Amino acid sequence: MAPITSAIHDQALAPVITHIDHVGIAVPDLDQAVDFYRRAFGVQVVHEEINEEQGVREAMLAVGDGFIQLLAPLRADSPIGRFLERQGPGIQQVAFGVDDVQDAARRLRAAGVRMLYEEAKTGTAGSLVNFAHPKDCGGVLIELVQAGGGH
Amino acid sequence: MAPITSAIHDQALAPVITHIDHVGIAVPDLDQAVDFYRRAFGVQVVHEEINEEQGVREAMLAVGDGFIQLLAPLRADSPIGRFLERQGPGIQQVAFGVDDVQDAARRLRAAGVRMLYEEAKTGTAGSLVNFAHPKDCGGVLIELVQAGGGH
Repeated sequence: MAPITSAIHDQALAPVITHIDHVGIAVPDLDQAVDFYRRAFGVQVVHEEINEEQGVREAMLAVGDGFIQLLAPLRADSPIGRFLERQGPGIQQVAFGVDDVQDAARRLRAAGVRMLYEEAKTGTAGSLVNFAHPKDCGGVLIELVQAGGGH
Repeated sequence: MAPITSAIHDQALAPVITHIDHVGIAVPDLDQAVDFYRRAFGVQVVHEEINEEQGVREAMLAVGDGFIQLLAPLRADSPIGRFLERQGPGIQQVAFGVDDVQDAARRLRAAGVRMLYEEAKTGTAGSLVNFAHPKDCGGVLIELVQAGGGH
C-alpha cells in the first residue's frame, strides 16, 4: 500500500484495511452450495478445509483477488450452526485484509471496538485472524485477515 | 481477466463475476456510520448520493479496489427501511462486478435464478445493476454491477 503523506501525521486517518478479502456465507450443505456458485457464477474452489475447533467445513471460491467463503456447520452448536438456527442461510460476515492483524486490532480497540479474541488466531489457509464485535460495528461481524501462505 | 482455455469450451464453467465490488451495509444514520468507518478503519468516502426511487441515501468508502457501501433509508417503507425494521442494521447485500450485466443475468436465469429486474437499472455512480433473488441464492441478496464512469 502506498503511504499517503497527509495521513501519516494523523494516526486516526491512516488506512487500517487494504482490501475486501472475502464475504462469508452460512450454508446448510457445503457441496450443494459449491455446486450452485460454480454453475451460476462460474467460480471455482481454490481451498477447502475442516476446522474442528470452530465446528465448520468451509470452501473458498476465487472472485478476482478476493473470495466467496462458504461455511457449513459440522454440528448444530457451532457458531455457524447457531447462525443458521437463528436467522437462516445468508451472509454471516465480511473479512477485510490487513497488513498486521495485531496493529489493526489495537487501532480498533482505540476506537472503542471490542475484539472477539485477545490475540489473533489461525484462520483459513494459515492466515492470522481476529474479529471485531458486531455489537460495536453496527450489527456487522467483521473479520480482519492477515494473509498466510495458504491461498 | 486471462481466459482459461479449458473453460472456454464449457459455457457452464466460464466465469461470470470478476471481483467483489462492494458489501452493502444497512445503517440507521449515514453520517454516524461514515464517521465510525473513518475512525475505526481509516477508510474514506469516495462517492455519496441520494436515490429517491430506492428511498436511500448512500456512501461508498474505498477499500482497495472495492467499496463498503453504507445504506441509510430516506423513509421507513423503502427497501432499506424495511430491512432495518425486519432484522436490524447489518450486511444487506454483496455486489459482484461483471463485464456485461445483461449477459450475466442471462447466465443466472439459465441456472434457474430469478432476477429482480427484467432489464438492468442505473445503480450507484452510473453503474448498470441487477439483483439475483435471495430465495434462489441461499438467502443472499446478490447485486451484479457493470461499472459506470462515476467512481
